[in-house]
Amino acid sequence: MNTEPDLSNPLTLAQRLIRCPSVTPADAGALDVVQQALESLGFTCRRLPFGEIDNLYARRGTASPCFMFAGHTDVVPSGNDAKWTHPPFAAEAIDGVLWGRGAADMKGAIAAMVASVQRLLTEQGEPAGSIAFLITGDEEGMAINGTKAALEQLAAEGETFNHCLVGEPSNPTIMGETIKSGRRGSLNCQISITGRQGHVAYPERAENPIPPLLTLLGRLTARVLDDGAENFQRSNLEVTSIDVGNPTTNVIPGHAGARFNIRFNIAHTGDELRRWIEAEAALVALTFDGEVACDIHVTGEAFLTPAGEFTTLLQDAIEAETGRRAALTTGGGTSDARFIHKYGPVAEFGLVGASMHQIDECVPVADIETLTRIYTRILAAYFADTPA
Amino acid sequence: MNTEPDLSNPLTLAQRLIRCPSVTPADAGALDVVQQALESLGFTCRRLPFGEIDNLYARRGTASPCFMFAGHTDVVPSGNDAKWTHPPFAAEAIDGVLWGRGAADMKGAIAAMVASVQRLLTEQGEPAGSIAFLITGDEEGMAINGTKAALEQLAAEGETFNHCLVGEPSNPTIMGETIKSGRRGSLNCQISITGRQGHVAYPERAENPIPPLLTLLGRLTARVLDDGAENFQRSNLEVTSIDVGNPTTNVIPGHAGARFNIRFNIAHTGDELRRWIEAEAALVALTFDGEVACDIHVTGEAFLTPAGEFTTLLQDAIEAETGRRAALTTGGGTSDARFIHKYGPVAEFGLVGASMHQIDECVPVADIETLTRIYTRILAAYFADTPA
Ligand SMILES: [Zn+2]
Ligand SMILES: [Zn+2]
Repeated sequence: MNTEPDLSNPLTLAQRLIRCPSVTPADAGALDVVQQALESLGFTCRRLPFGEIDNLYARRGTASPCFMFAGHTDVVPSGNDAKWTHPPFAAEAIDGVLWGRGAADMKGAIAAMVASVQRLLTEQGEPAGSIAFLITGDEEGMAINGTKAALEQLAAEGETFNHCLVGEPSNPTIMGETIKSGRRGSLNCQISITGRQGHVAYPERAENPIPPLLTLLGRLTARVLDDGAENFQRSNLEVTSIDVGNPTTNVIPGHAGARFNIRFNIAHTGDELRRWIEAEAALVALTFDGEVACDIHVTGEAFLTPAGEFTTLLQDAIEAETGRRAALTTGGGTSDARFIHKYGPVAEFGLVGASMHQIDECVPVADIETLTRIYTRILAAYFADTPA
Repeated sequence: MNTEPDLSNPLTLAQRLIRCPSVTPADAGALDVVQQALESLGFTCRRLPFGEIDNLYARRGTASPCFMFAGHTDVVPSGNDAKWTHPPFAAEAIDGVLWGRGAADMKGAIAAMVASVQRLLTEQGEPAGSIAFLITGDEEGMAINGTKAALEQLAAEGETFNHCLVGEPSNPTIMGETIKSGRRGSLNCQISITGRQGHVAYPERAENPIPPLLTLLGRLTARVLDDGAENFQRSNLEVTSIDVGNPTTNVIPGHAGARFNIRFNIAHTGDELRRWIEAEAALVALTFDGEVACDIHVTGEAFLTPAGEFTTLLQDAIEAETGRRAALTTGGGTSDARFIHKYGPVAEFGLVGASMHQIDECVPVADIETLTRIYTRILAAYFADTPA
């Protein structure tokens, strides 16, 4: 009796992965499942642990070019398990639908990646180059000890790749809709203004921090950052919270805080936006007898992998399996591609993301099969005629 | 042996009152102390309880004119008792200073009122009119079941007064500085804006309530309400809190709230300000796909007892004892005078308020004696030549 799983069937592997409740930072055996499968396909595997996070780097062959798949086995929490129609970590496949946390984001895609290598080797034999996998356990969390740290270590060792494909669920509603060929940058800022508490009947003895906060937020939100950039939406600033927490009606508070986030396109850099925010804060501080502080974190710079041979290769493979010419887009949230693009061209294509991070996350089993065929076509085309 | 306290000595009575820990809504026997003293001076006393609050109305005589003293026996909490140099309810009199919660606000003044009646009767005999006391246990709290409710009931019964003097600590730093001859009005507003929650990367799918809140607060704070009115400071709007309470950096909140207070002079009425706020909110609501609500409470209208025979009588008595011509002012917070002015002319004069509501509240014993002499002079002058 053969206990080896059938690696050409991505559903089996996806189910084994979903049954590991790998909610960040837990791994719950998920990377072992991937590593075991890749080792049976001839990959050399190593772990790259950082802090409480484990990561897996696998490479098959040493020749150039190197095509790298990237992804994550960690998932967001399942929330209230009682609300799920199918238990979140049971991986039930019923009437052609696979249910479970991570089915779409992105254990189904990782299973498709592994199966596509098996099929490539079976159908085409040895590729004219090498294949790598960088699978992290810290994409949904702080993302500090995951892809970013792993790439830094690999680069320090001289390990490189030529092109990278990330398996994030890039399609809004149907397979073949969109490839993510870039991402907007993201900046978080916490404003903290300290004045002097007092009684509302004696405002001249107090220094209310709320008026300068309103002025600063007014100036920041009034600026039109841009009207969009090629392949990008316009940059946007959203004030996400303002918090004073004064429970009384007759006291002028001594402190006020606010937070905002900027999603910015390639017309901006995090540093330029940081300097702008600091200058606006300094202007407001001039009019106020207190302290105005801005704590700014740029969590990702905007980037774009320009349309070219690589993106065309991806579009051709997708179209051959789905009949759709995938659009190149840069919208939505961030992903680990923001770290990968510093080392080489990267794009993202995976399953349909509609149910990701939701109760009853699910994906059609047929989509996993389609994605496996697309990935197999991509690998075959890549090694037949490696893009510039 | 005579166990009757010496009512001509206000210190003894003030100490007995301070030793009742009458933190609103507790009475702790304080009104009994006042009632016992007034009954021994010939007053007819009755209680006017409303809800959990007890109030005392006392009147000596039925003839017109009726001069009414008004005040409160409740006090604000003592805070951290360990921080007091002298225990807050021990009423220690040391080196000419009386220590304790309520010494300044306003048990010392109530003791001076009672002692002044005793001295008037001893020195001048029966007055040509009557004297009343309205002492509440709900001035520092919600002020719903105190002076306001008591006056409504007394008015319904046909009980009236000709002039009223409130014993609030009206002097900022030294006896004889200021009489309060009016008070600003006060309006509280809670703004509540409901939009639609979403992800910061997809602002077009959300409706952030913070921008309309910033717009509304910007419009409200930009208006110069006035440049002051005769005897009044300029009206002032203070935003006291803004609260969203969104803990995340990547979620656009669905709700935002803010609170502000307006202290307004006689150039405004609460109703007019309410209509203005509601109109500004309606304008902002037009630009926003959500709900904008304003919950407005006018806690007191502005009022002024114009300078005239009554205020001159007060100033003359104060000047005779302190050598200072007290200024007529309307600044500071609210007091129960906001309720009393609807029924007759009212002014406020009491002790020095510097330590009121603080740790180590205290008042010089000599100030209580000075205030007793001033009140005695006021009564004597009032019944000798009642003001118009
Ligand atoms: Zn993901
Ligand atoms: Zn008071």
